[in-house]
Amino acid sequence: MEKTKVAIVGLGTVGSGVAKLLLDHGDRTARHAGRTLWLEKAVVRNLNKNRVCDLPDGVLTDDLNDVLTDPDIKVVAQLIGGLEPARTVMLQLLDAGKDVVTANKALLAEHGAELFDHARALGRCIAFEAAVAGGVPIITNVSQCLSANQIGSLHGILNGTSNFIVSQMDEQGWSYEAALAEAQRLGFAEANPAMDVDGSDAAQKLAILAHLAFGARIRWSDIPRTGIDSLDLADLRFARELGYRIKLIAHARLVAAGLELSVAPTLIRFGQPLAEVRANYNAISVVGDAVGDLFFHGQGAGQMPTASAVVADMIDTAVGRTPITFRTLELWSKRESNVVIRPDQEMPGRYYMRFQVADRPGVMAKITAILGEEELSIASIIQHEPDPRGCAQSVQLVIMTHEAPEGAAQAAVDRIVKLPVVSGEAVRMRVMEERRSSK
Amino acid sequence: MEKTKVAIVGLGTVGSGVAKLLLDHGDRTARHAGRTLWLEKAVVRNLNKNRVCDLPDGVLTDDLNDVLTDPDIKVVAQLIGGLEPARTVMLQLLDAGKDVVTANKALLAEHGAELFDHARALGRCIAFEAAVAGGVPIITNVSQCLSANQIGSLHGILNGTSNFIVSQMDEQGWSYEAALAEAQRLGFAEANPAMDVDGSDAAQKLAILAHLAFGARIRWSDIPRTGIDSLDLADLRFARELGYRIKLIAHARLVAAGLELSVAPTLIRFGQPLAEVRANYNAISVVGDAVGDLFFHGQGAGQMPTASAVVADMIDTAVGRTPITFRTLELWSKRESNVVIRPDQEMPGRYYMRFQVADRPGVMAKITAILGEEELSIASIIQHEPDPRGCAQSVQLVIMTHEAPEGAAQAAVDRIVKLPVVSGEAVRMRVMEERRSSK
Repeated sequence: MEKTKVAIVGLGTVGSGVAKLLLDHGDRTARHAGRTLWLEKAVVRNLNKNRVCDLPDGVLTDDLNDVLTDPDIKVVAQLIGGLEPARTVMLQLLDAGKDVVTANKALLAEHGAELFDHARALGRCIAFEAAVAGGVPIITNVSQCLSANQIGSLHGILNGTSNFIVSQMDEQGWSYEAALAEAQRLGFAEANPAMDVDGSDAAQKLAILAHLAFGARIRWSDIPRTGIDSLDLADLRFARELGYRIKLIAHARLVAAGLELSVAPTLIRFGQPLAEVRANYNAISVVGDAVGDLFFHGQGAGQMPTASAVVADMIDTAVGRTPITFRTLELWSKRESNVVIRPDQEMPGRYYMRFQVADRPGVMAKITAILGEEELSIASIIQHEPDPRGCAQSVQLVIMTHEAPEGAAQAAVDRIVKLPVVSGEAVRMRVMEERRSSK
Repeated sequence: MEKTKVAIVGLGTVGSGVAKLLLDHGDRTARHAGRTLWLEKAVVRNLNKNRVCDLPDGVLTDDLNDVLTDPDIKVVAQLIGGLEPARTVMLQLLDAGKDVVTANKALLAEHGAELFDHARALGRCIAFEAAVAGGVPIITNVSQCLSANQIGSLHGILNGTSNFIVSQMDEQGWSYEAALAEAQRLGFAEANPAMDVDGSDAAQKLAILAHLAFGARIRWSDIPRTGIDSLDLADLRFARELGYRIKLIAHARLVAAGLELSVAPTLIRFGQPLAEVRANYNAISVVGDAVGDLFFHGQGAGQMPTASAVVADMIDTAVGRTPITFRTLELWSKRESNVVIRPDQEMPGRYYMRFQVADRPGVMAKITAILGEEELSIASIIQHEPDPRGCAQSVQLVIMTHEAPEGAAQAAVDRIVKLPVVSGEAVRMRVMEERRSSK
């Protein structure tokens, strides 16, 4: 049987998983690739560090040149995290004539254009299924399986850490801090979870998906984003009372005026598929004009799910599918993008708002007058009686609007919080549009 | 831009959808294929039949030779239903040097080995994404994206007609006959729905998926199958009371003793993704040993969802991905399958049983004694008081068991229905195992 020599650079969690699949399960890669993927080298920084996986003699090295100078190594899984030295190593691998597979979405979101142009100029290719949604093969589905469609919208739960935390808050009634601590204990959150919980990680993945689905070229840091780090348990409870769950949603929708993009905690009605995504799972709902709505759900991170995506990419690259896809799609090419990113203030949507208001006559009239002036129509409203045992002078007022422009919603909130009868900060969140019906 | 000439044979519902995508949306196929797919010919039986789509002059023909003898036509979507002349046309197209795309699962389930061997011998390829689950790209996902995995199980709702009917019965409380009539009125069921509602269509699709996922070679007609055509509203109601829905599930699971395969109405607990699949949707839940559980959901039939899959296949074939996949996977090759199909009687599972029993002392003791002798353990039981206004001498007894071999469950039912205190036929259905937890 034909043999393709491959290498791994970076033997952390995912790298060890990839090594395990290549070494222990060569039979299945052989069956699906019609050839053996032979792990020739695994490059690490520190040879003395304890490894979870046993490698055959001669495979482990701390010298990248062992890979760069071996012309028989055709495909390399580059699994170093962060931007540097990941970027430099990637360029070196391409220069040395290797096709590269990576799971590093931060690298692609930041340096995708440079890396892809470089690969194209050299006639090489880059595969990155594992960079978005881990084991869920959304990259292949969007860039290959849906190619007959104009994609109209894409909504994703793309950060498993955030979804785990929000699910725990919602189901267990835990505070954000307690849920985060549990996520860290179970290994679902890093010691420093900032990029996960502030929406940055989801925005990086959305930038990649928006490029594939809509041809948009946007810096991830330009995507408006709100994380779950300021999410209040009270809002999860009010949402539930209204028949909704709150999820961190990466939103992309093509409308006449352009492409809407955002990452934010969003209300989704019970029973809609994204509302039912629990624990650390990822999910993506895509609507194409021919295919209708498609929904994908699975493990978005973790050693073996991510390794599953990396090895599938290594097989696709070795057999020649990825080079074709890479060539035909012209990803992140200098070709002009004709997609206009729509300004945040214009995106229409339904809104959930919560205010802390004084418990006295006339308050509701003042607030609803402002909503009316800003042309916001009220869909539902909740105000509970104050606890008779308490001595609170204020109560929570929750309002759900019908569809309105973001600008109008923000203007109304800005005016309402300045009312003397309103105290503290207001909460404002989007409500996700219903998935289109099946008929 | 490079141009690949293509043709369509059969301009029915799906064929017209494919023509529409190729003619109206050439820009998007060009963007995803790096070339134009140029519709050169569309072959129909009757030139005088009214067509829903406008074709450019010279495209429509009733002579297959116009396609066979044109060496510039490289890819042909063969969209004739049924076995003949579909099989003969497919062989002629391959002989004439065309790569073929098809949506005809009956043809593949029946003649797959012959057609694939023929294509291989000629160096041609066959693509068939649209043959299973319509717009849901499950073929590509199983045969390409999950290639690093040993798939452990695959459960699907693969027949939209059946799912629509069962959903209507469950949600609206309609009889099977009324729900079928509604499905026919809405175009979700054929005038002759036999193959859909008796489980045959799902079994044909399962045979294809089981081949891709497990390397099994099995005749679809050898898969044990029960349809929804004898489903009783009472069982949907009792299932709901127990916290379950009933769905027509195509089941494949690899266990030590071999591969279990079946199609049957099955109880699934609320909240499990397959339980929440409504209307005419399709869905597939796959568990791989690396990726964990993945879930796919979308339109399993209909003009444009199916056309979406056909055109994606045409693009994959034109750019060269399908030929690679076809060559490396050796589908339906003469290579020996090492998968043992496990005899039906050995499959362990949980069971739902319903009996019509006399409303008098000692009945429960007799039935539970038999269950005990057959080593079936009771998980839950329902028997309601008889309607006090009625004069019924009998009541419904519903029993849900813990896991037991199929043979034991059948033996118990066979013995129980022979008891003098039991009247009429018994109902027995499988309960689906829980999707594995996320931790």
